[in-house]
Amino acid sequence: MQLPQSVTMREVGTRDGIQSLGAFVPTEHKIEMANLLAGAGLKRIEVTSFVSPKAVPQMADAGELMAALERRPDVSWEPLVPNLIGARKALDARSDRLVVVLAASDTFNLKNIRMTVEDSLRNVSEIVPLARAAGVPVSAGIATSFGCPYEGDVPAERVGQIVDRLIELGCDEVSLADTTGMANPLQVERTVGGLRERRPDVQFGLHFHNTRGMGLANVMAGLNVGVTVYDASIGGIGGCPFAPRATGNVATEDVVHMLEEMGIQTGIDLDALIGCAQRMSEILGHELPGQVMKAGPRAVRHAA
Amino acid sequence: MQLPQSVTMREVGTRDGIQSLGAFVPTEHKIEMANLLAGAGLKRIEVTSFVSPKAVPQMADAGELMAALERRPDVSWEPLVPNLIGARKALDARSDRLVVVLAASDTFNLKNIRMTVEDSLRNVSEIVPLARAAGVPVSAGIATSFGCPYEGDVPAERVGQIVDRLIELGCDEVSLADTTGMANPLQVERTVGGLRERRPDVQFGLHFHNTRGMGLANVMAGLNVGVTVYDASIGGIGGCPFAPRATGNVATEDVVHMLEEMGIQTGIDLDALIGCAQRMSEILGHELPGQVMKAGPRAVRHAA
Repeated sequence: MQLPQSVTMREVGTRDGIQSLGAFVPTEHKIEMANLLAGAGLKRIEVTSFVSPKAVPQMADAGELMAALERRPDVSWEPLVPNLIGARKALDARSDRLVVVLAASDTFNLKNIRMTVEDSLRNVSEIVPLARAAGVPVSAGIATSFGCPYEGDVPAERVGQIVDRLIELGCDEVSLADTTGMANPLQVERTVGGLRERRPDVQFGLHFHNTRGMGLANVMAGLNVGVTVYDASIGGIGGCPFAPRATGNVATEDVVHMLEEMGIQTGIDLDALIGCAQRMSEILGHELPGQVMKAGPRAVRHAA
Repeated sequence: MQLPQSVTMREVGTRDGIQSLGAFVPTEHKIEMANLLAGAGLKRIEVTSFVSPKAVPQMADAGELMAALERRPDVSWEPLVPNLIGARKALDARSDRLVVVLAASDTFNLKNIRMTVEDSLRNVSEIVPLARAAGVPVSAGIATSFGCPYEGDVPAERVGQIVDRLIELGCDEVSLADTTGMANPLQVERTVGGLRERRPDVQFGLHFHNTRGMGLANVMAGLNVGVTVYDASIGGIGGCPFAPRATGNVATEDVVHMLEEMGIQTGIDLDALIGCAQRMSEILGHELPGQVMKAGPRAVRHAA
C-alpha cells in the first residue's frame, strides 16, 4: 500500500455528531468540547451549522458557540452553511472557512434539504462569492457520494460532474461523504482513485461513516489513493437516520490511533483526544461507539 | 488492490465468542446456533473446545455439543484441543479437523495456558500424529501474532519461526491471530505478505479482533496479500480480556457483507447470517457489537 506521511483530520463531532441527537446539548458543553478538541491538536473543526433553528433546534446556538471559541492561529473553525442567510451569519461570526453540503442524488437532497441538486448548486453559486469577498474559503461536501439509501448506487460519473461544478463555482476543496455508510473499500479505491486521476488539481477530503463496520477500511482505501483529509467525529458520535441503533461517523480517536500506529503523522495528542471522547461520553450520559476509548491504545502494556 | 474471487469464512462464535462469557450458555442454545450457522452456509465452524471443564466451565459441554451437531458433507466441525487428552476426546466425537493454539510470545502463553511456547510445540507434536492416524487434519493458530499485551511488539521473524515449526510438525494450515486487537493494516501487509512470500507452500488463515476498530481494515490488508481464510464470530461476540467494554472478534456478518459488496464470493446467505446474529443477541440477552445486524445490508432501499 501507498501511504501518505501525514494526514489532516477534520473534526465534525459537535456538528454532524451532535446534530442528530434529540436532547439539546447545552451550549457551554459544546464550547468546552470544541476548545478541548482544538487543545488536543485538531486543526480543522466543523463546529456547528448556521441552519434554521426551526429546522435543526440542536444547532440554534451556532452564533453563541462561535463567539465563545478560543481563536488560535493553528485552528480553522469551519461551520456548515445551508444558504446565503447562514453564510452571512457565519461570516459575521468570524468563521475561518465555510462548508456547504449537497447530495449526489436528487431524492436524498430533496428529503434532506428540500431542494434539487441543481437548486443546491445555485445556492453554492451565491455563497461562494460572498465568502471569497470576505477572504474566507469554501469547502463543499457531497453527501451520498458512495450510494443513496433511496436510490441505491450513485454513478461515479454523477459525483464527478458535481465535483466539476463545485470547483467551477469556486470551492477550493471537495469532501466526498458516505452519508449512510454504504461505501466499501474497493468502491472507494475505484471512485476516489478515478476522480483524483481525472482531477489532480482538486483537493479532496473523505467523510466516512462506520454504519456497516467498514469505516476504517474505507479510510485505508482513501489513503491508498492519496487522500490526506478525513472527517471524523469524537467518540464516533452521531448515528444513521435510517437505523436507530446503528453507528454514525468514524470515531476521530480510532482513526488517529490507526494512523499514528502506521507512522502517519496527524499532529494530534492521542491521549488528549481519548480524554475528549471520554468527556463527550460524560456530557451525553451514555457509552459511545469509539473503540480505542474503551480498549486503550495498542501501546499500553499490561502487567504480566 | 488485488482481491481474491472467493473467501472461506471460519466461524468461531460458539468457541472464541462464547468462551469468555461469564454466564453459562445452555448447550441447547449452542447446538441451535451451530446448526443455524451451518444452515446459513458456513463451511468451517470452530464450534467448541475440548479443554478442562475446570479451566473453562463454559466449554464443559463440548462432547454433548459435538454429538448433537447436524453432520453435512459440506461442513467441517473444528473444535479446539489444548492437549492430547482433549485431542482424543475430539477425535472420539468425530471432529472433521482439530485446532491447536499457541502464542508467539512466551509471556502470553504462560498467562493463557501456563506453558512456554516450546512446551506448546511439544504438545502439538503429540497431537498431530494422533489426528493424522485418524485421518483428521490439524490447523494451528498463533495467538499474539501481531503484538502481545504484555510484551508489546512481536517480531515477524519470531512468528515465522513458529510457522516453520508447526508445518514441520504436520499442521496443514496456520492461522495468525490478533488476539487483543493490536494489528494495523500496514503491519498485516508487511507481516503476512512477508510470510506468504517466504512460505508460499503454507495455507494461511487470519483471525482478527475489532478491539481498536481496525478489524475490517485488517481483513482488507489480508485479502490484498492473498489470504483467503478468515475467522470471525457471529454478531462480533466475545471480548478483550484486558478491557471489559471493548469488543472482540470481527463480526462474521460484517465481514461477509463487506466481501459480498466487493464481489468476493463466500457461499454464505447474508440474510440467514444476520438472522443468526439476531438469534445470538436474543440468546445472550443483550446487544452485540456487529454493525450490519443493526443497520441492515447496504442493498436495502428506504422509501423516499
